Amino acid sequence: MIKRINHIGVAVKSLGLSSDLFAKIFEQPHPHTENVPQQNATIAFFPVGESSIELIESATQDSSISKFIDKRGEGIHHICLEVDDIKKEIERLKKHGFQFVNDHPDEGGDGYLVAFLHPKSTNGVLIELAEKMK
Amino acid sequence: MIKRINHIGVAVKSLGLSSDLFAKIFEQPHPHTENVPQQNATIAFFPVGESSIELIESATQDSSISKFIDKRGEGIHHICLEVDDIKKEIERLKKHGFQFVNDHPDEGGDGYLVAFLHPKSTNGVLIELAEKMK
Repeated sequence: MIKRINHIGVAVKSLGLSSDLFAKIFEQPHPHTENVPQQNATIAFFPVGESSIELIESATQDSSISKFIDKRGEGIHHICLEVDDIKKEIERLKKHGFQFVNDHPDEGGDGYLVAFLHPKSTNGVLIELAEKMK
Repeated sequence: MIKRINHIGVAVKSLGLSSDLFAKIFEQPHPHTENVPQQNATIAFFPVGESSIELIESATQDSSISKFIDKRGEGIHHICLEVDDIKKEIERLKKHGFQFVNDHPDEGGDGYLVAFLHPKSTNGVLIELAEKMK
């Protein structure tokens, strides 16, 4: 079951500059930043209601975030949907013909198991599924 | 004050095909569609937690949605943040140097007053502010 929008990921060139912008928009202090080695990225979250805006700065020139920015510029990168049972959701969606970037969930940041639906099967929208690990 | 993510707007070529896809993802029936003449568009909403995914199909070749799809393909178009007082938020953000597409809020769909922050001032992220009219 899909429970909520966990976060919206935004690809940025400079986490420092963008944190400054988004701190003003959301009237929040500068957030704590976190390195995510699995994704070659540094991230920061701004909570909004039951969701967050996640700013993502690439740590390398050849990461998927760098390639996204090279191709399309900074902007909204993905939507993360929180689910109660990620393996069940992957099986359910594969039966409908959806393709996944990774069929088996990986450990993401912040205690979540995550898997990405391939944007080719979802109208160009990169969708991350995430289940909070117990 | 920013209260929540009201919706995430997704630009699509065919509302029929995309509604079919997203109905499968969210395990929901096909949504009611609505014409929004102010935006030259037809839209449909899929509720997710306290937010929604809004699919947007252009009704004309020269609308902003058509131009977006021509340039970048189908995909995530904007984030809509629900606020308690849109005029106050516009004034607050203008003082911080943010630019708006429309300085004065317009009537959007579904009983909301809306204004768009210019993506040039927000790292390429098109942000809509929306206040529910009383």
